[in-house]
Amino acid sequence: MSRGIFISMEGPDGSGKSTQIALLKEYLEGEGYDVLITREPGGNRISEAIREIILNKDYEEMSPVTEMMLYASARAQLIAQVVGPAIDSGKAVISDRFIDSSLVYQGMARGLGVETVLNVNKVAIGDYMPDVTFMLDLPAEVGIARKKDQKELDRMERESLEFHKKVAEGYRTLAGSFPDRIKTVDATLPIDEICGMIRSSVKALLDR
Amino acid sequence: MSRGIFISMEGPDGSGKSTQIALLKEYLEGEGYDVLITREPGGNRISEAIREIILNKDYEEMSPVTEMMLYASARAQLIAQVVGPAIDSGKAVISDRFIDSSLVYQGMARGLGVETVLNVNKVAIGDYMPDVTFMLDLPAEVGIARKKDQKELDRMERESLEFHKKVAEGYRTLAGSFPDRIKTVDATLPIDEICGMIRSSVKALLDR
Repeated sequence: MSRGIFISMEGPDGSGKSTQIALLKEYLEGEGYDVLITREPGGNRISEAIREIILNKDYEEMSPVTEMMLYASARAQLIAQVVGPAIDSGKAVISDRFIDSSLVYQGMARGLGVETVLNVNKVAIGDYMPDVTFMLDLPAEVGIARKKDQKELDRMERESLEFHKKVAEGYRTLAGSFPDRIKTVDATLPIDEICGMIRSSVKALLDR
Repeated sequence: MSRGIFISMEGPDGSGKSTQIALLKEYLEGEGYDVLITREPGGNRISEAIREIILNKDYEEMSPVTEMMLYASARAQLIAQVVGPAIDSGKAVISDRFIDSSLVYQGMARGLGVETVLNVNKVAIGDYMPDVTFMLDLPAEVGIARKKDQKELDRMERESLEFHKKVAEGYRTLAGSFPDRIKTVDATLPIDEICGMIRSSVKALLDR
C-alpha cells in the first residue's frame, strides 16, 4: 500500500484554519482520499489529557521548556497512535497545527530557539514531517479580534498582544526558512480565494 | 550566595531509595544544610498532573516516545520551579529518581537509545545535572518481590520481569558510562552499611 499524504494547517488564532481544513477535506475526498482531520494538541485520549494540562489557565507558573515538552509529548502520541498508522495505510491526514506551532510559539515567541525545539520535536515525530504546510498569515490584531468573541480564552490565547505579534512575525520568518514545505497564504483574502490557492498547491503535490 | 548541592538517588523499584534518602537528609542537616527532598515524576502541581498521566495504568497504548517526553516535561517543571531555585539559594536537594531513570527506562529498556533520551533531557534540565548520583543496585527479582506487597502497581511497575531485568542491567551499564558522577552501591547490604558508604561519598563532595 502506498504512503498517504500529510498536510498541516498553521497560523495565528482566528486565521481561519478550521474553515480551510473543512474545504480541503472536501477536495481531497473528491480526489478519492480517505481523509482524517486531527487537531493539536489532542486527537486521542492521552494527548487530550496532556492538552488539559497545557491549556489550563490556572497554570501560570508553567515554564517555557515544560510547555514545549508537553506539546512534543502530545504530538508523539498523536503520531504513534493516529497520524502514523493513517498515513501508512494510504490516508490523507490534515492536522490543525503541528510542529511549526512549536517552532513559532515556543522556539520564537517564548525564546527557546528554533533549533532546540526542532531537535526535540524530531524525536517526537520521527519520519512524519508534513508533506506540505499552509500558513494562514494574518496581522496579530486581526486574529485576536476575531477570536475574542468566541469563548473563554485558554492559557495560550490569554497571552499579550506583544506575544501574538511575535507569533505572527515568527510564522513569516519560519516560512522563509522552509520555503519548499511551508506555503504562505494571505488570510485576509476571501475564503474561496484562499481555498483555491490551497487546492492548486495540493493538486501539484498529488500530481508529483 | 554559593550554589548548593544536587544529589539524585536511583535504582530499581524496591531498592531502598526512600530509606537512604531519609538517612542522607539527616546527615546533610547535621552538616548545616537546608535540605529539600523531591520525587520524580512530581514535586509540584504541574509535574504531579503529568505524573497522573504517566502512571495511569489504563493508558496501555502510550508510546515509548510519549512516555519519555512526559517524564522530560515533569522534570523541566521540577527544575524551573523547585530544584533550580533551591540550588541557586544554597540548599541541598535530594531527588528520588532523576535523569538516569529516563536514560535507563526509556533509553535502554524501551529501546529509544541513551543518546536520544539524553539530548532531550539536556534541554529539560539545563545546567542542573546532579553533582553525584547513587545507584542502588539490586537484582530485578528481589526488587519486584519487595515492591509487590506494598500497594496497587502503577503502569511502570506492572511491566514484565524481563523489562525490570533490562532496567537493572541498564543501570549497571550507565554507571560504567558516567563513573565520575554515578556511584554504585550494593542494595542487598545492610541499611547502615549502605548509609555509611553514601555518607563518605557525600562528605568527599562537600570537602571538595
